[in-house]
Amino acid sequence: MKVAIIFGSKSDKEIMKGAADALKEFSVEYKAFILSAHRVPEKLMEVLKELENQNCECIIAGAGLAAHLPGVIASHTTLPVIGVPINAALNGLDSLLSIVQMPKSIPVATVGINNSYNAGMLAVQILSNKYPEIKDKLKEYRKNMKDKFIKENNEGVEF
Amino acid sequence: MKVAIIFGSKSDKEIMKGAADALKEFSVEYKAFILSAHRVPEKLMEVLKELENQNCECIIAGAGLAAHLPGVIASHTTLPVIGVPINAALNGLDSLLSIVQMPKSIPVATVGINNSYNAGMLAVQILSNKYPEIKDKLKEYRKNMKDKFIKENNEGVEF
Amino acid sequence: MKVAIIFGSKSDKEIMKGAADALKEFSVEYKAFILSAHRVPEKLMEVLKELENQNCECIIAGAGLAAHLPGVIASHTTLPVIGVPINAALNGLDSLLSIVQMPKSIPVATVGINNSYNAGMLAVQILSNKYPEIKDKLKEYRKNMKDKFIKENNEGVEF
Amino acid sequence: MKVAIIFGSKSDKEIMKGAADALKEFSVEYKAFILSAHRVPEKLMEVLKELENQNCECIIAGAGLAAHLPGVIASHTTLPVIGVPINAALNGLDSLLSIVQMPKSIPVATVGINNSYNAGMLAVQILSNKYPEIKDKLKEYRKNMKDKFIKENNEGVEF
Amino acid sequence: MKVAIIFGSKSDKEIMKGAADALKEFSVEYKAFILSAHRVPEKLMEVLKELENQNCECIIAGAGLAAHLPGVIASHTTLPVIGVPINAALNGLDSLLSIVQMPKSIPVATVGINNSYNAGMLAVQILSNKYPEIKDKLKEYRKNMKDKFIKENNEGVEF
Amino acid sequence: MKVAIIFGSKSDKEIMKGAADALKEFSVEYKAFILSAHRVPEKLMEVLKELENQNCECIIAGAGLAAHLPGVIASHTTLPVIGVPINAALNGLDSLLSIVQMPKSIPVATVGINNSYNAGMLAVQILSNKYPEIKDKLKEYRKNMKDKFIKENNEGVEF
Amino acid sequence: MKVAIIFGSKSDKEIMKGAADALKEFSVEYKAFILSAHRVPEKLMEVLKELENQNCECIIAGAGLAAHLPGVIASHTTLPVIGVPINAALNGLDSLLSIVQMPKSIPVATVGINNSYNAGMLAVQILSNKYPEIKDKLKEYRKNMKDKFIKENNEGVEF
Amino acid sequence: MKVAIIFGSKSDKEIMKGAADALKEFSVEYKAFILSAHRVPEKLMEVLKELENQNCECIIAGAGLAAHLPGVIASHTTLPVIGVPINAALNGLDSLLSIVQMPKSIPVATVGINNSYNAGMLAVQILSNKYPEIKDKLKEYRKNMKDKFIKENNEGVEF
Repeated sequence: MKVAIIFGSKSDKEIMKGAADALKEFSVEYKAFILSAHRVPEKLMEVLKELENQNCECIIAGAGLAAHLPGVIASHTTLPVIGVPINAALNGLDSLLSIVQMPKSIPVATVGINNSYNAGMLAVQILSNKYPEIKDKLKEYRKNMKDKFIKENNEGVEF
Repeated sequence: MKVAIIFGSKSDKEIMKGAADALKEFSVEYKAFILSAHRVPEKLMEVLKELENQNCECIIAGAGLAAHLPGVIASHTTLPVIGVPINAALNGLDSLLSIVQMPKSIPVATVGINNSYNAGMLAVQILSNKYPEIKDKLKEYRKNMKDKFIKENNEGVEF
Repeated sequence: MKVAIIFGSKSDKEIMKGAADALKEFSVEYKAFILSAHRVPEKLMEVLKELENQNCECIIAGAGLAAHLPGVIASHTTLPVIGVPINAALNGLDSLLSIVQMPKSIPVATVGINNSYNAGMLAVQILSNKYPEIKDKLKEYRKNMKDKFIKENNEGVEF
Repeated sequence: MKVAIIFGSKSDKEIMKGAADALKEFSVEYKAFILSAHRVPEKLMEVLKELENQNCECIIAGAGLAAHLPGVIASHTTLPVIGVPINAALNGLDSLLSIVQMPKSIPVATVGINNSYNAGMLAVQILSNKYPEIKDKLKEYRKNMKDKFIKENNEGVEF
Repeated sequence: MKVAIIFGSKSDKEIMKGAADALKEFSVEYKAFILSAHRVPEKLMEVLKELENQNCECIIAGAGLAAHLPGVIASHTTLPVIGVPINAALNGLDSLLSIVQMPKSIPVATVGINNSYNAGMLAVQILSNKYPEIKDKLKEYRKNMKDKFIKENNEGVEF
Repeated sequence: MKVAIIFGSKSDKEIMKGAADALKEFSVEYKAFILSAHRVPEKLMEVLKELENQNCECIIAGAGLAAHLPGVIASHTTLPVIGVPINAALNGLDSLLSIVQMPKSIPVATVGINNSYNAGMLAVQILSNKYPEIKDKLKEYRKNMKDKFIKENNEGVEF
Repeated sequence: MKVAIIFGSKSDKEIMKGAADALKEFSVEYKAFILSAHRVPEKLMEVLKELENQNCECIIAGAGLAAHLPGVIASHTTLPVIGVPINAALNGLDSLLSIVQMPKSIPVATVGINNSYNAGMLAVQILSNKYPEIKDKLKEYRKNMKDKFIKENNEGVEF
Repeated sequence: MKVAIIFGSKSDKEIMKGAADALKEFSVEYKAFILSAHRVPEKLMEVLKELENQNCECIIAGAGLAAHLPGVIASHTTLPVIGVPINAALNGLDSLLSIVQMPKSIPVATVGINNSYNAGMLAVQILSNKYPEIKDKLKEYRKNMKDKFIKENNEGVEF
């Protein structure tokens, strides 16, 4: 397993699925956990230690409201942590600010509101530095994305 | 010691002084700590355990930016936790939302931005249920506040 | 009765039910009132006096829009007042700010938008300082919450 | 006295002076009071009763933060109440929303943030319906304002 | 006719009905117009002149988005103008700010977002200074509102 | 004269100077006016008629707070109107929304907060369609901007 | 072709139709493209060069979220670029700010959120400087708009 | 060189210095460039190609206002791109949203407003997966940070 996906409640599963989708697209092994920084902090720390032992290389964490999960994880590991702000109130502005505005020395790599797919993509990009086969796939993915986009939209638009 | 005041950095001391001021006014014993949820999470948990052993009855926690400290404390104790959002960016909106929007079951009693004096007052009110002498002082404080206000402002205003 | 729940209109009942749910979970006696700071201010003051006479120890107040109810109550009592911002416009930002930004000396313990359950929990935590049986229940509640969380989410997540 | 100006603290005097300036410009008698909805609610109610007895016709109230003063006044009188949001935090957005978002049936006539001069002008306009001499002055004021504006700015602008 | 209600499009009629409801409740004669500051500015000015000739005493204007209508009206009359911010985008924050933040000397009395009923109430309060029969009705209305509120909510609340 | 620059008060002159700077850079003739939509609406309309007679081709209007000037101008002319939101409160968010959120059919071409230079540039771009010499200058300006940027920043950065 | 309409995804087509509607109303030739600044940047630049060669005179670009498309286009052309912020999150505030707050020298003429019709109208106004027949149509359009408005709304409003 | 730091103007140098500070602390080779997505897009692309050839592994990009630089870079490379929102207006909310709300497939790893030090730290964390010596330093850095924090703050706080 190279990536862990962590979020705080079954109700966030649908939103967080995008992260898994991106990782699958690049055949990156991941494991997903439901863990809450507020409800089961001790269990969370236990799992984080295990993840380091299992040579996990990147953690994706999604949370809504006062979204502490990504930052709390970042305080317990030196792995890069990617935060997904989930919209549960205030259009997600609360979770965005709770995730992105981390204090000096403990960053969380924040992606767009509800945009877990981009969290998965970012994990893939991070891994691609070390794994040439992922880098190759990334370049191919980009190329395919462009080709597909141009093909689909080549005929222009009629209103 | 009945109340603990916790904040994450010396730079927050000036803002957090108000909490101590209010507690002193009511002769409530307190102890203050600089502890960070992100930088020294293990030390924080250690101190929280000690606080419970020392029969601390209320914790005041101040933080800015992605202000996780009050919520992280609340996840490790069943004592009432009072959160003070400190303005370090975005006029304090980031810290307000990071503190007040806690998930179900783990509340933080949030006061106004930079308003640590009110955190101290709230701790006093919470304690007053149990300690009749504090309740008496509170009623006197209110009465004095009113008398002083009326005396100071009785002559009307001339522009 | 240890806790009073007050809100300004029948239309807020559904949102405020969470406060009662939390109090019931801990067998804390409460009484609920529909009272408006703007429509029946005299009646509100009358009830507040009665509450003090009946040794009420904590007041939960919910309001939307220009949410003055919790602050007005706080100005007439020295009991701890817990404010629930109700979303009736602007995603609840108006009521949050109207409740949390109280002036020096008259705090309102504010919880998250629409999160009346947390207001109930906070009342329980406040009472637990004085009532050991509530403290015991709180610790058990936390333990059960953790156990249930871990049991429900132990199998990991499949996307 | 036709207009009362009320605000909660000496520190608001400078901002609220504009209301008096506007009233003086139209020779409208006013009286100013420092009164707080939260600190001296009983005194406030007392004064409001007196104001009605003295045939006051309009009340201007300024407040910052969780600005309840104008709304609380409006709940105790049927006189038109004009609210001035004072910027004490969050650029005044908190006081604006706390004043303008009043519930059905109890309006506050809200003017711009810190714009107490406009509160005075609005009081003058309200009085002008009943007092023809004020209406005449208002029309002259407008005419003079226009003449002065055109005279001052007639020469065009050189950068 | 004592009050004019003006708004910019048929689509705002439903929201603005509240103003008429309040005026009807007090038997205040009003006339309603659909007029746009941006689409028919000349016609608007024409109607405003007529209104002054017909001794209209107060104008209620509702608008959404970049809501210029109330302010433009205020620049062409010395009558008190009441502005109703209509939510057409951004939860009505755009229209609220476009209406309330008027420059020095040209106030608009702003009420809550979509809260046209309060605009009607405010017009009634403004008129009540001059018309004792409206003042009497207002006091009765308030008394009835209180009685009704207390009667409806007297039995307490069961969750 | 090809472009008119209009703003509501001498205090906005410093901010609006950027528009003149950009126009001068392209030798585009302009004329600047201090005119207020709220204080001198009749004079504004008079000037707008003159501008059309003098074959003005574009109007730049700057305003703060409830910034109606650009929209009011747009309602009286079919020339392209460029709006500059000036920061006078709320960091300029009020003026930005008051300018950009115009209703269907009456657009205002809005530029960034306080960014009057870009308003001048946009006027130049608009004129460049008709005047080949301006188009040539624009292309040269862009080329020079790039050359200058690269020259100034070519040596890399040392921290 | 005088105007190009560009947007980044088929899902924006419905919103962007308004731009085409306005252009059709004035018989202005346009061509529409689906092109993304992030997915196919090279293709976008290619098309922009072609547009300049085909004497396109104005570009309308719509985008949501971190809406870079209009600004990126503006950096590659000296044609006037009109930006349409599309609401895809945060009520469109993110796209509005991403489009309007362009740096010095590279303006984007921004219209209201989702208001592509106004982008079309603005393009028409820009073209009208050069093409007298469009100017004539614009004046007629305005006149018709006024006549139609007055006709439709002449009977007053009954609630 | 393992990391490139890119920003759009000399005026951002002071803010962006933090990224270099963090990288120096870990002896990570970096190179810094002043390059603008809007002013010199072709030069930017040229440099990006070079960076890939030189086996750069991570790009840090800082920008203010409509901050397109990080997103534009991300569209031209598959390297992980870290975005630093710089506060140049609206407290940095405009640049934060312009950077973080990227569309599907092209993520930018966003850190806090003006928090370039965290961008450097995140780059270090990303590199640490591949370079064991960086991972070791990171763990030591964390340990030292904790030790230093505890040492500095161990004596408690006196108000």
